[in-house]
Amino acid sequence: MKRSGIINREIARIAAEMGHMDRITVCDCGFPIPDGAKVVDLSIIKGFPRLIDVLKALREELIIEKIILAKEIVDKNPEMHNAILKLFSDAAVDYVEHSEFKKIAAVSSKAYIRTGEATPYSNVILSSGVDF
Amino acid sequence: MKRSGIINREIARIAAEMGHMDRITVCDCGFPIPDGAKVVDLSIIKGFPRLIDVLKALREELIIEKIILAKEIVDKNPEMHNAILKLFSDAAVDYVEHSEFKKIAAVSSKAYIRTGEATPYSNVILSSGVDF
Amino acid sequence: MKRSGIINREIARIAAEMGHMDRITVCDCGFPIPDGAKVVDLSIIKGFPRLIDVLKALREELIIEKIILAKEIVDKNPEMHNAILKLFSDAAVDYVEHSEFKKIAAVSSKAYIRTGEATPYSNVILSSGVDF
Amino acid sequence: MKRSGIINREIARIAAEMGHMDRITVCDCGFPIPDGAKVVDLSIIKGFPRLIDVLKALREELIIEKIILAKEIVDKNPEMHNAILKLFSDAAVDYVEHSEFKKIAAVSSKAYIRTGEATPYSNVILSSGVDF
Amino acid sequence: MKRSGIINREIARIAAEMGHMDRITVCDCGFPIPDGAKVVDLSIIKGFPRLIDVLKALREELIIEKIILAKEIVDKNPEMHNAILKLFSDAAVDYVEHSEFKKIAAVSSKAYIRTGEATPYSNVILSSGVDF
Amino acid sequence: MKRSGIINREIARIAAEMGHMDRITVCDCGFPIPDGAKVVDLSIIKGFPRLIDVLKALREELIIEKIILAKEIVDKNPEMHNAILKLFSDAAVDYVEHSEFKKIAAVSSKAYIRTGEATPYSNVILSSGVDF
Amino acid sequence: MKRSGIINREIARIAAEMGHMDRITVCDCGFPIPDGAKVVDLSIIKGFPRLIDVLKALREELIIEKIILAKEIVDKNPEMHNAILKLFSDAAVDYVEHSEFKKIAAVSSKAYIRTGEATPYSNVILSSGVDF
Amino acid sequence: MKRSGIINREIARIAAEMGHMDRITVCDCGFPIPDGAKVVDLSIIKGFPRLIDVLKALREELIIEKIILAKEIVDKNPEMHNAILKLFSDAAVDYVEHSEFKKIAAVSSKAYIRTGEATPYSNVILSSGVDF
Amino acid sequence: MKRSGIINREIARIAAEMGHMDRITVCDCGFPIPDGAKVVDLSIIKGFPRLIDVLKALREELIIEKIILAKEIVDKNPEMHNAILKLFSDAAVDYVEHSEFKKIAAVSSKAYIRTGEATPYSNVILSSGVDF
Amino acid sequence: MKRSGIINREIARIAAEMGHMDRITVCDCGFPIPDGAKVVDLSIIKGFPRLIDVLKALREELIIEKIILAKEIVDKNPEMHNAILKLFSDAAVDYVEHSEFKKIAAVSSKAYIRTGEATPYSNVILSSGVDF
Repeated sequence: MKRSGIINREIARIAAEMGHMDRITVCDCGFPIPDGAKVVDLSIIKGFPRLIDVLKALREELIIEKIILAKEIVDKNPEMHNAILKLFSDAAVDYVEHSEFKKIAAVSSKAYIRTGEATPYSNVILSSGVDF
Repeated sequence: MKRSGIINREIARIAAEMGHMDRITVCDCGFPIPDGAKVVDLSIIKGFPRLIDVLKALREELIIEKIILAKEIVDKNPEMHNAILKLFSDAAVDYVEHSEFKKIAAVSSKAYIRTGEATPYSNVILSSGVDF
Repeated sequence: MKRSGIINREIARIAAEMGHMDRITVCDCGFPIPDGAKVVDLSIIKGFPRLIDVLKALREELIIEKIILAKEIVDKNPEMHNAILKLFSDAAVDYVEHSEFKKIAAVSSKAYIRTGEATPYSNVILSSGVDF
Repeated sequence: MKRSGIINREIARIAAEMGHMDRITVCDCGFPIPDGAKVVDLSIIKGFPRLIDVLKALREELIIEKIILAKEIVDKNPEMHNAILKLFSDAAVDYVEHSEFKKIAAVSSKAYIRTGEATPYSNVILSSGVDF
Repeated sequence: MKRSGIINREIARIAAEMGHMDRITVCDCGFPIPDGAKVVDLSIIKGFPRLIDVLKALREELIIEKIILAKEIVDKNPEMHNAILKLFSDAAVDYVEHSEFKKIAAVSSKAYIRTGEATPYSNVILSSGVDF
Repeated sequence: MKRSGIINREIARIAAEMGHMDRITVCDCGFPIPDGAKVVDLSIIKGFPRLIDVLKALREELIIEKIILAKEIVDKNPEMHNAILKLFSDAAVDYVEHSEFKKIAAVSSKAYIRTGEATPYSNVILSSGVDF
Repeated sequence: MKRSGIINREIARIAAEMGHMDRITVCDCGFPIPDGAKVVDLSIIKGFPRLIDVLKALREELIIEKIILAKEIVDKNPEMHNAILKLFSDAAVDYVEHSEFKKIAAVSSKAYIRTGEATPYSNVILSSGVDF
Repeated sequence: MKRSGIINREIARIAAEMGHMDRITVCDCGFPIPDGAKVVDLSIIKGFPRLIDVLKALREELIIEKIILAKEIVDKNPEMHNAILKLFSDAAVDYVEHSEFKKIAAVSSKAYIRTGEATPYSNVILSSGVDF
Repeated sequence: MKRSGIINREIARIAAEMGHMDRITVCDCGFPIPDGAKVVDLSIIKGFPRLIDVLKALREELIIEKIILAKEIVDKNPEMHNAILKLFSDAAVDYVEHSEFKKIAAVSSKAYIRTGEATPYSNVILSSGVDF
Repeated sequence: MKRSGIINREIARIAAEMGHMDRITVCDCGFPIPDGAKVVDLSIIKGFPRLIDVLKALREELIIEKIILAKEIVDKNPEMHNAILKLFSDAAVDYVEHSEFKKIAAVSSKAYIRTGEATPYSNVILSSGVDF
């Protein structure tokens, strides 16, 4: 077995593939994922597993230099908003309209990681950094 | 979106395919899954998501008439053992050696659902019932 | 076996994949489905199974916030038209030309569910809602 | 469109492939279909579509010289038993144990056609005849 | 075996898929079929089987509301031209340049059925009708 | 285009692959072809194209040193029997029971070429020769 | 075995697929073949097999009405140029810039046949004719 | 990018899949890997990369409870033998004949990791442990 | 381009995969290659390219420690026999019955390289050596 | 085994496919490789194997007439820059912006060879030459 870190086989591979500025989208269970996209569906039932628990695991595995959020999260889901900011305190943050967020995700995500999160606008694009 | 129940796309399909006496194996993250088997990897990191949370969701979705456990769970992981029995109180229970458990799973599982559980012998074969 | 709900393996998966504003097209057996589209062919012979029976099952499974119909159904197939409206009384309804309906379906359907219905313009696009 | 007969694309192909003594299994929604078998899943919800409606369509399409039933149907589901016999009155009938039925189906079915039937032992193997 | 009609497995499926205004191209053995197109190659040697024999079988199976021919057939292959018109006497007929014919076929054929016909311009696009 | 000979793309390839003692089975439309076998389906409707026309084309393309027939053809289909013998007058002929014929075909055919022939026992295994 | 002609399985199939004005490119071993193109790689080492030997075999198999050459062959490889013209004396000849040749080949070749030829500009596009 | 550990995408996935007692074979460039086996070919030229460098990286990633070596390494490649033992000082070691080693690898390796090592018998089977 | 050696893409890969005692079969154009085997078809027409030219190229690329020939070559094709022995003068030679040769090839060839050779028993199994 | 040169099976094939002006990109482990690109991942951990060792092996195998570097390497990684220039002293060198480099690589690389290099801008596009 792996000693530590992410043990999901699909995510382990995606993480190893990530190059500088490559992106993945981690989303709630209501997010409309385009057909044909690479999807790692971790969702079990609405509300489980939570977005924040998946993000914690990803932060341990990946160098993240920037995150992108939908503006609407600020008012519609402040609790989630703050939790995400706290988790990625050392990363830049871009805010875009949810409609724009979907477009960016569609053109630039190497993969979508779908969680069971069932609270509004609980979607984040993680943009990879590099340590050299 | 689905109104309720299991929202994981792979498990939703597997559940719909299940016929009488068909089986799936729900296992901890250390379980040696045979190459070529159908695997739904819900694991994220060691310990998350827990086996019992996944079993709860499956029990709501599927008619389970029998479960199979490794004997060793009784002494090596009593807490998990009791939690599983409590969850499937209306199902028959078979106990077999862990080595035998692996063989039964290998020949009769339509799929393996891998959780993040990281406690000993936390593996269960669910055998489907029928309501007619 | 599944306790209840849709037991068709393909539709069960599609339903679990549906995100907010994702769409599926449920059509009669004469509808020209584009090559390469995801098709669940439930049709057996002309007239069986009926569109309305399939729609009933889907309504139990999915949150539908909007439906799209071809205008021509109003005059050419009033009986079907009323049955559909009654079934989705809590959803918004858009009417478009049949030629336009085919284009919308082609660009936005995650899948086509083909029934045996053999009455004019018996096609409906279901647009998914979200309950958070 | 096809002028008449079976319009399901998968069944139309299977019917065209059938040679003398080739077999298909038409089953209820609880039947355990082996992994890897060719399946045409017509089921929508438990009870719909009914086995007898599917069998009627198949009888119009195919020359059937023999059918195989599980013995248990005689007592456990007499109504279905009589309906099937009536439908295939010009075919030979073999009765075998349900356990044996599953084995025969597994080794000799070109395909399984799954219906929504939800009454006991509502499964029949159709063995193709030839008209020269 | 099938009681009657088309027994070619590929064509049987294509016929069952055809919706209103869907098209197939039935062509001679010299027709340049685009790479990637769905092809049912019935040709054996130049001249066998003949186009007209294949068209007869298709006319029994499918509702055809319109056919498209290359203009050049009128003068370069009058015998074939008349035979085709006679066969589809109840269908509309469009005439286009052979170069245009190839483009129409390429963008709108669900499949090409290649015969052994070896006489000039012996190609016809069949456009499906609907009987409701 | 090819100057002459077999123009069917599948058969052209199979013929080019044939080595010494390799076999293909050319059969009538009622022959039960095993699942998974390589099939070139030339059949259109029952009776067309005829077995003998396909065999003529194959004899021009391939060196055939031996043919295998089902014994039953001698009495049940003498006309076909004589036509085949005449066509392959320079090849050895083996006669086996039809049940045995099916087994030999299943284990040793590189491909099945299905014709529209609809007369009894109109099946022949062609065994390739070599001219060095 | 085949009695005569091309015995390469891939080329045999390609030849049988060729329709009027369909094209294949036969090239030297340094020719940059686009990714994704259909390639029959006959090359063994630089210089073997020669282009002219492959072309001779193709000329026996296919009706060629036109060939396309790179202009540069006239001066840079006159010996090859003359040998090709002699071989296809009854075909039209187009000359284009090598850069243009690569574009034409890329958009219109059903396949590339790569030889071991290692002399400059030894590439030819063969355009198929029809004998009816 | 990944913060640390194995960044090879294939090995990252294999490591995440490993369950208790699952095995991988890390071998020199002359090792006969069975057809169809999962292979991660890290070799570049004979001698590079070295086996020991690859093993070091794997030891950081995976819990290894046992290794298997070919007996012949003890005499034929003592330097490598000692280096391997030193690296996996906390794992059990089995010694088998090289011929037996190949059989064990063939039946039990989830994957072969091929290095550039070009010294005799430089092959090791790593058997995964579990930390619960 | 490659500076030297084998430039055939398929053979280049197979050569790089070869481990100690791995085998490939280089055969004449009449050799019956089992279905499903990996085949590199270099044949163009009967007699071209010759076996010996292909073997020369392979000998430059690969370390061959043993070859296997059919006994019958000694008397039936002495010229070829001598040419092969001369080419692999530093390799061991095994002679087996042609029927046995075919079995050995079938179970142990990583690939078959088919040449145009059209002289009797011109088939050789090359068994790879190792230089450490 | 291969006598010498590149023994990686994927790179051996790519090298054999290379035609004049075909390109491959050899990059560090942080380079963002587009989804769907052909990737040979030689990376093991950050820093191993080094870019220069992989380039040495490639230079022995391939005729390289030009290389492309990101301008930024000159100042940000002079040591690597000089090492690369020294290695390809007989090839032309183009310098482009790193952002432009990524575009060129994306549209023109037959494959990406990913190394473990973890120093800035250690990426080079190799453009193939021809020796006739």
